[in-house]
Amino acid sequence: MMTETQPVRRTRTTLADGRELIYFDDSEPYVSGGATRRLDDPRPLPDRFAAAPAGSPRGPQMRFDVLTGEWIPMATHRMNRTHLPPADANPLAPAKPGAEYSDGEIPAEDYDVVVFENRFPSLLQVPGEEDLTTPLDGEPLWPTRPAVGRCEVICFSPDPSASLATVGHRRMRTIIEAWADRTSELGKLPGVEQVFCFENRGKEIGVTLHHPHGQIYAYPYLTPRTATMLRRAREHRAATGRNLLRDVLDAELRSGRRIVAESEHWVAYVPAAARWPVEVHLAPRRDVPDLPALTDAERTDLADIYLRLLRAGDQFFVTGDGDGEQRAIPLPYISAWHQAPVREGREDLRLHLQLFSILRAPGKLKYLAGSESGMGAWISDTTPEKIADRLREVLA
Amino acid sequence: MMTETQPVRRTRTTLADGRELIYFDDSEPYVSGGATRRLDDPRPLPDRFAAAPAGSPRGPQMRFDVLTGEWIPMATHRMNRTHLPPADANPLAPAKPGAEYSDGEIPAEDYDVVVFENRFPSLLQVPGEEDLTTPLDGEPLWPTRPAVGRCEVICFSPDPSASLATVGHRRMRTIIEAWADRTSELGKLPGVEQVFCFENRGKEIGVTLHHPHGQIYAYPYLTPRTATMLRRAREHRAATGRNLLRDVLDAELRSGRRIVAESEHWVAYVPAAARWPVEVHLAPRRDVPDLPALTDAERTDLADIYLRLLRAGDQFFVTGDGDGEQRAIPLPYISAWHQAPVREGREDLRLHLQLFSILRAPGKLKYLAGSESGMGAWISDTTPEKIADRLREVLA
Repeated sequence: MMTETQPVRRTRTTLADGRELIYFDDSEPYVSGGATRRLDDPRPLPDRFAAAPAGSPRGPQMRFDVLTGEWIPMATHRMNRTHLPPADANPLAPAKPGAEYSDGEIPAEDYDVVVFENRFPSLLQVPGEEDLTTPLDGEPLWPTRPAVGRCEVICFSPDPSASLATVGHRRMRTIIEAWADRTSELGKLPGVEQVFCFENRGKEIGVTLHHPHGQIYAYPYLTPRTATMLRRAREHRAATGRNLLRDVLDAELRSGRRIVAESEHWVAYVPAAARWPVEVHLAPRRDVPDLPALTDAERTDLADIYLRLLRAGDQFFVTGDGDGEQRAIPLPYISAWHQAPVREGREDLRLHLQLFSILRAPGKLKYLAGSESGMGAWISDTTPEKIADRLREVLA
Repeated sequence: MMTETQPVRRTRTTLADGRELIYFDDSEPYVSGGATRRLDDPRPLPDRFAAAPAGSPRGPQMRFDVLTGEWIPMATHRMNRTHLPPADANPLAPAKPGAEYSDGEIPAEDYDVVVFENRFPSLLQVPGEEDLTTPLDGEPLWPTRPAVGRCEVICFSPDPSASLATVGHRRMRTIIEAWADRTSELGKLPGVEQVFCFENRGKEIGVTLHHPHGQIYAYPYLTPRTATMLRRAREHRAATGRNLLRDVLDAELRSGRRIVAESEHWVAYVPAAARWPVEVHLAPRRDVPDLPALTDAERTDLADIYLRLLRAGDQFFVTGDGDGEQRAIPLPYISAWHQAPVREGREDLRLHLQLFSILRAPGKLKYLAGSESGMGAWISDTTPEKIADRLREVLA
C-alpha cells in the first residue's frame, strides 16, 4: 500500500494480550518508530484466549435468525466491558512521555495514525475454534457458529480534540492508506467475507469516546445491506447487462439536481431516495470495487473531497442565540464505506461512501421507532433536493 | 368485529378537516355517544386536500430506492408540523366538559378507546391522485408515486397518566377489537398492502406525547421486514412443506429454554436469535394470519397475557439509590404487531407480536450506529437466555 506520492511507514507490534497494533506514520521523524519512543505495551493484560468454562467456546458466538436469514453475533462479554475512559483517562491518547506505565491502548509516545484490535470485540478469530457450527438446543432451524472476524479501532490523530474534518490533507491521505491496507489484510483472514470501515461521531450516535477514531469490522458473512444491494445489482445486470451503481452515478450526473461536489476522480451526490435527514454518497468516477483498488491519484483526490464534505457537514445545521449570533453544530454522523465483499460480487458492487446523520434539526433527532425498527420501513421528513441545496450552500 | 363476550360500540364521525374518527366504547353509558356529550369538532381546520401549487401533488410522495428495492415516503410537510402539545395542552385528552372550543383532537368529553386519522400523515389517500407514477428527473431508475395509505392514532385511555400496561383487562380487550377492526377496514382501502399496529413508548424512542396511545399504519407496499420474512417463509415451505413461523413456535416449545409465559391460546418466548437488549415474541398457538382472524376466546386470552408481558417489561430494569432502595424503570419499548399482508402470504406469514426495547441497562441505550444503521448488521450485547431468565423472574 505504499504510494509514490506519499510515503507511509507501517510498523507492526503486539499489545500485552497479543492483539495486533499497527502504526501508519507519514511524517519525519516517523515518531512511532523513533528509537527513544516506547513501542512495547507494559500492561499486565489477561490472556484474551484464556480457557473458558469446560465446553464453552472462548470467543463470541453468533446465531442464525431464521426469520430474516441474518446472523446475529452475541457479544455478551461486551455487556460488562469497562466503560472507557474514566474522567481522567483517554485510552486512545499516546503514552505519556517518560511514564513507565500507561493505561492507554497505545504504547508509543506519539503517532500519526494507528490501528489496533478492539479489546472487547464482537467478532474474533479464536485459534482452533473456527468451525464449531452447532444447532442451538439441537434444533436444525437455529444454527450457531463462532463469530469469527475482527474488530479494529483506527485513531485518526494523536490529538484528542481533533476531528476527522480537521486532520488535514496529509493525515487524511494516510488514513485512506490505512483503510485500504486493513481492507486488504483483513480480507485475507479465514472466514472473512466483508470488510467495513466506518466512523461513528457524536454522542447522539452513542459515542462516549471523543478522541477522533473510527472502526473497522471484518464480518464472517455478508451484511444485510450488502446482501440486498448485491441482489439488486445482480437483478439489474441480468435485466440490462449493466452495473447498477454505475447507472445510478450516471443518472445522478445526467440530472445534476442532487450533485453537491465534483472533482477529477469523485462525485458527491444526495441519492434520489435518501432516507436520512442528512445523507450524501461519494463515489469514484471509475468502476472500483473497494479502497485497495484506488489509484494514488484517486486517493489523493479523495482526501480532498472527503475533507470538504466533512467540513460542510459541520456547517449544515446552525443554531441562533438571542442576539442573532449563529453557531454551527458539529454534525453527529455515521460515515460508512460500502465496499464489494471479499469473495463475490466484485463486478457488481462498487465502492462508495455513505455519510449520514440522524440529526434533523438543531436539538431534534430522527428516532428509529416502530416503522423503522419494527418493520424496516423508513420514512423521510425531508427531500434529497433540500439536503443537496443546503450542502451546496455550505460546501467550501 | 363485535363480540359476544364483550360488547363494543363503534361510533364513527369526522373531524373538522374531514378526517375519520371512531370511538370504541365498552362501558355503560357508552360515554362518547351520550346525548349530552359533544361529538362534533368545532375547530376551523384547514382543508387537508387543499390545492397544492400548480402541478404539485397534494399528498405525500414516495420514491423507490433502487439500491435496496424499498419505497421511501417523503413526508416533507411533517418537517414543519406543529410540535404538539404546548406545555398546557394534550391533543389526545377528551374535550373539556362544557367548553365551546377544544384545541384537542377528540371532540367528545370522555371516551374509552378512540382511533382517528393522523393530522400530519406520512401516508395519505388523496382522492384522484392514486396513480400518478412518474420517474424522478425522467430517469426510469427512480420511480416515484403517491404514498397512499393511512396513518391513524389510537388512544388507549382518556387518562393522560395511564399506560397500556395499566388500562385493565376490559379496556385491553377493547383495544384488541379496535386493532382488529382497523386491520380489516384499512386492508380494504385501495392500494393498501399491509396494516401495522404498533406502539412507541418512552422518550428514549422519541415519543414526545405521553398520553397512552399507539399508531396504525396502512402501507402501500410490503415493508422490508415483512418482505424478508415472507421470502424466508416461502423458501422454508418449498424446502419442507411447512409453515416457518409454526416450526419456530414448535421448536421453542420443544426446547422450552426461552419460553417465558404460556396461556391456553398464546405462547410468549424470547426468540432464539433476539437482536434487541430486551425482546419477546407473543404468538397464538393456532395458525392465524392476523388480528381479525382471532376468535373471541383468543382475544380475551390475549388481553390477559399481553398485560402480563407489559407489566413484566416495566419491572425488567431496576435502579438503586444510595439507600439500597430499588426502583423499577418504566421500559421504553416498541410493540409491533406482525400480521400477514392484505393480498399475499396469508398462508405463510403468521400473526405475532414483537415487543422490544433499546434500553440495555438503566440509563444505557443500545444505539444503532455504523454496523446496524450503515450495514443493517445487528450485534447483540446479551443472549436470549438471559433476557428470558429475567422476564421469568418478573412475570406475575
